[in-house]
Amino acid sequence: MEFIKQPMAIERRSMELIAPYIEGLSLSEAEKKVYSRIIHAAGDVEYAPIIRISETAVEEGIAALRGGADIYTDVEMVRTGINKRKLASFGGAVHCRIQDPEIAAQAKAQGVTRSLAAMRSFGAALTGSVVAIGNAPTALFEVLRLVREEGVRPACIVGIPVGFVGAADSKKALAENRLVPYITVEGTKGGSPIAAAAVNAMLYEIDNSRD
Amino acid sequence: MEFIKQPMAIERRSMELIAPYIEGLSLSEAEKKVYSRIIHAAGDVEYAPIIRISETAVEEGIAALRGGADIYTDVEMVRTGINKRKLASFGGAVHCRIQDPEIAAQAKAQGVTRSLAAMRSFGAALTGSVVAIGNAPTALFEVLRLVREEGVRPACIVGIPVGFVGAADSKKALAENRLVPYITVEGTKGGSPIAAAAVNAMLYEIDNSRD
Repeated sequence: MEFIKQPMAIERRSMELIAPYIEGLSLSEAEKKVYSRIIHAAGDVEYAPIIRISETAVEEGIAALRGGADIYTDVEMVRTGINKRKLASFGGAVHCRIQDPEIAAQAKAQGVTRSLAAMRSFGAALTGSVVAIGNAPTALFEVLRLVREEGVRPACIVGIPVGFVGAADSKKALAENRLVPYITVEGTKGGSPIAAAAVNAMLYEIDNSRD
Repeated sequence: MEFIKQPMAIERRSMELIAPYIEGLSLSEAEKKVYSRIIHAAGDVEYAPIIRISETAVEEGIAALRGGADIYTDVEMVRTGINKRKLASFGGAVHCRIQDPEIAAQAKAQGVTRSLAAMRSFGAALTGSVVAIGNAPTALFEVLRLVREEGVRPACIVGIPVGFVGAADSKKALAENRLVPYITVEGTKGGSPIAAAAVNAMLYEIDNSRD
């Protein structure tokens, strides 16, 4: 059975196949990379018309990561999907507290999800960071509350939780916020590889700009 | 802002919302759980008509996991997504070698992907196991080669790689195999949370059957 086995050739061919689906959109080169990597990660070209990126989000995200900003994720799968070696080369690290026993205890006591409790616990540390949410609408709602009520200001929120309960609403609330740059997707679709793909697209842009 | 914050309530409501999309399909109760968890993980009801499960796959997968079978994954994100505590309660563990330096060296020397080299290295250990592939078509092609040419017989292959280069073909080859039970999805869609969701659905069925 014949199939392409070289990783670089697979990625190049994949990006070529995706290109026609985003050609007509008015996007910067860096934004095109974010679109392409999201579509690549989902295997789903129907993401093209539902991705929403605020005007400065990719620029701000890249600037923060280049400057060594940390990334805060809601779940371990997003952390796993982020290229941590690339991130560390700029000085950044990924934080995720969903498996922290202290967070589990707080969540249980408050009757909330662990990912909400985890985001709450980060608090002011989120200012200047990149937030990457790929699973829990409750985590995204909590970050938006921190922005609105406690003056927290992430450099960029990648908010792409998934599912039928709260995900679409939380992403709509993100897209309506005017305080923090964001990358999101309309509706119920999303997930950890999608959020990680958007972050990695920004990380890889930094390398490119150094070439 | 009002939203559901209790994890159990969120999951229950989500499954209620998905139910109408799989109602018309001729599925066992356990197969319905696999469908529901896949749709839940992708936030995408359009998975319903493209999921393909061979006649005994869910039954065989559950029997293997109940008996303490190990799980072999192509990438770390699938490992991260699997409920390892539940798996361990039956005696199983998850294996993934994509970050193993020895595998990286073999892949480079042979000009293949690391996930292909990792699957090749597992070889006969895959017999009786559950294989869960959520990213790399090359890994799935290699498992199918091991089945065809080397007599390897996993109890169940969850083969849901994603993307535009090889994914659809590798899943078609899986669905055409008559040697090993399989769970897959037609076309380009898929990914780590989708593969992990299918595995977790089977794991959770074992608990249910003990209630």
